[in-house]
Amino acid sequence: MSTERIRAFLEEKQPATPCLVIDLDAVADGYRRVRDALAPARVLYAVKANPAPEVVRVLAAEGAGFDVASPGEIDLALDAGVRPDTLSYGNTIKKPADITRAYESGVRRFTFDSESDCDTLAERAPRSGVWCRILVDVPGAQTPFGRKFGCSPDLAVRLLRRAADAGLDVEGVAFHVGSQHVDPAAWEAGIASAATVSAELARHGVEIKSVNLGGGFPTRYRDDVPPLARYGEVIGSSVRRHFGRTPPELYVEPGRAIVADAGLIRSEVVLVSRKSDVDSHRWVYLDIGRYQGLAETEAEMIAYRLSTAHDGTADGPVIIAGPTCDGDDVLYQRTPYRLPLALRTGDHLDILSAGAYTASYASVSFNGFPPLATHVVGESR
Amino acid sequence: MSTERIRAFLEEKQPATPCLVIDLDAVADGYRRVRDALAPARVLYAVKANPAPEVVRVLAAEGAGFDVASPGEIDLALDAGVRPDTLSYGNTIKKPADITRAYESGVRRFTFDSESDCDTLAERAPRSGVWCRILVDVPGAQTPFGRKFGCSPDLAVRLLRRAADAGLDVEGVAFHVGSQHVDPAAWEAGIASAATVSAELARHGVEIKSVNLGGGFPTRYRDDVPPLARYGEVIGSSVRRHFGRTPPELYVEPGRAIVADAGLIRSEVVLVSRKSDVDSHRWVYLDIGRYQGLAETEAEMIAYRLSTAHDGTADGPVIIAGPTCDGDDVLYQRTPYRLPLALRTGDHLDILSAGAYTASYASVSFNGFPPLATHVVGESR
Repeated sequence: MSTERIRAFLEEKQPATPCLVIDLDAVADGYRRVRDALAPARVLYAVKANPAPEVVRVLAAEGAGFDVASPGEIDLALDAGVRPDTLSYGNTIKKPADITRAYESGVRRFTFDSESDCDTLAERAPRSGVWCRILVDVPGAQTPFGRKFGCSPDLAVRLLRRAADAGLDVEGVAFHVGSQHVDPAAWEAGIASAATVSAELARHGVEIKSVNLGGGFPTRYRDDVPPLARYGEVIGSSVRRHFGRTPPELYVEPGRAIVADAGLIRSEVVLVSRKSDVDSHRWVYLDIGRYQGLAETEAEMIAYRLSTAHDGTADGPVIIAGPTCDGDDVLYQRTPYRLPLALRTGDHLDILSAGAYTASYASVSFNGFPPLATHVVGESR
Repeated sequence: MSTERIRAFLEEKQPATPCLVIDLDAVADGYRRVRDALAPARVLYAVKANPAPEVVRVLAAEGAGFDVASPGEIDLALDAGVRPDTLSYGNTIKKPADITRAYESGVRRFTFDSESDCDTLAERAPRSGVWCRILVDVPGAQTPFGRKFGCSPDLAVRLLRRAADAGLDVEGVAFHVGSQHVDPAAWEAGIASAATVSAELARHGVEIKSVNLGGGFPTRYRDDVPPLARYGEVIGSSVRRHFGRTPPELYVEPGRAIVADAGLIRSEVVLVSRKSDVDSHRWVYLDIGRYQGLAETEAEMIAYRLSTAHDGTADGPVIIAGPTCDGDDVLYQRTPYRLPLALRTGDHLDILSAGAYTASYASVSFNGFPPLATHVVGESR
């Protein structure tokens, strides 16, 4: 159990709080679990989920490819020893200079969703493989993407024809249903749309090779989520239904589903107080908040499982907040949480399944608090 | 004009974008303007608004005191040469070890709002001056504080009596109406409540010396705001009305009102695109977003003034977004913005009055993008 190994590390080393501890063996386990559940799709790990070099190294050793979002992530992956031909530059928002830099680093796979980016790729990353990202309207993502990424399927057809004409290597269609998506059926809509684009392209003599199904596979936080295998089944049957006997290759870009469970954040209780003598709720202030790594508590989107040494003793309702002088640095005030009545200043509070979208999201010095430190444990080091 | 001096610097040096440029002379001007408008209140600059050491040094030279939120901000101020007796530790959420460290650094002024913190201050910062922060319900703050800070006035009376009994030096009552507050009348409610607490304390033999009116004084972004002098007038008349002939000393903790206008962020347009052939809005993607310094665009709370080299030419409606692979990294999609039709990839876009709550709020490496760099200009260097 990764949590036990992490707790043993914390007991032995007593590092300053707050800190994130990642179990690298659990990262490798997470990768294998996701790969097996979503096979035959090939896995491109979304580096943004946890860009710790140790994590990237473990996943490279396991055979993962990588979805990178910026020149910074490309450099990080290459510095960790990743082969550039396993990288995919999945961000549709790229400066021309960034494309040049990626191409010179050996990256040959890109995603785009606009005419301008298509033309820049043709010029600066000639003959590279490209996916065109389409907009898919799927309700139900806990952190939906809105309309920021992707274009209409009609436009995608035109852009992929343009890409083919410009000498780019048309991989196919990409979509993304949003992060922490708890309904496997969401992928059906994207696959159906990708098949429509594919058929229309074929009528114009352009054959796609693959569909990039993006990420969004969920982690169990406080609420249960469907097993990963269920996502694999729905994707498989959707591809058969919409593509028939000539299914494309499939790629997925999981991040959270691989690393979230491998990480635990240890925090310390700074203060427990009430606002008046008649307040029903205690306020519990931690030494970590929204701006030091718990960015996904914005709008209380992700409700983490919490654990203290007093678990199992009498508890009561609480509002949980971070340590900064910012009124928005409140983690949970609408989501009902209860914590032990025995909880006191100086007690530890552990935040579970916190390996994804935490440390790299911390601010440089919001209110003068330092960024979240990361430690790693496990045999894979 | 600070903007002209900043633009001259940008033209000459052509620094990498995105970057924040602060005009230190404008910081000094901002301080004097705030001090004069709010006199006789004494100014404690809220370091969190912009903790650049150069900014802190200029303000110390001008005679400002400082409101600090953490040991990190205390160290930063002391390293910049600030005298510890001009620091006020205004965060009500403090680890006991942080109080010890502050006291050992020479800090002798603290704000608290709970019994636990009161007792820890009495033990670890003996005889220090203390304000008790009260909850004030004031509608109308553009970034309201909710109930995270402060206690009920009843509890404040009990806590300040407890503080006096424990040998602490009772300064008085503190409140904060919320950030970017456009209604000067908001301070009236806090002053009335502080007067009630003061009168009740006097009945128990405890005399307060001062009221800390907090910050919240606004900056003009896209919308006009009342002149600062209007805030000074309302505060003055409220104090006369509620405290009569024995007015307390007054303190204010402005941040934004001092530094916002002294800063300009230069960004670059990464991409201009449409999602379909019939879209009415262009999407304009910048090389800066919510996670690299524009944290206050969360929920489109702060609507910055924008400027490009094409201003004055034909324009059209836009949605403006940041460069990361995050669907929430959209700056403005509900707030109506228009930008020139001539705007292209590679053009500069300047974000005005961006000196407050920007650089230090950037993430360490969200999506692999580096934090926002700060440059300074001006004679005060």
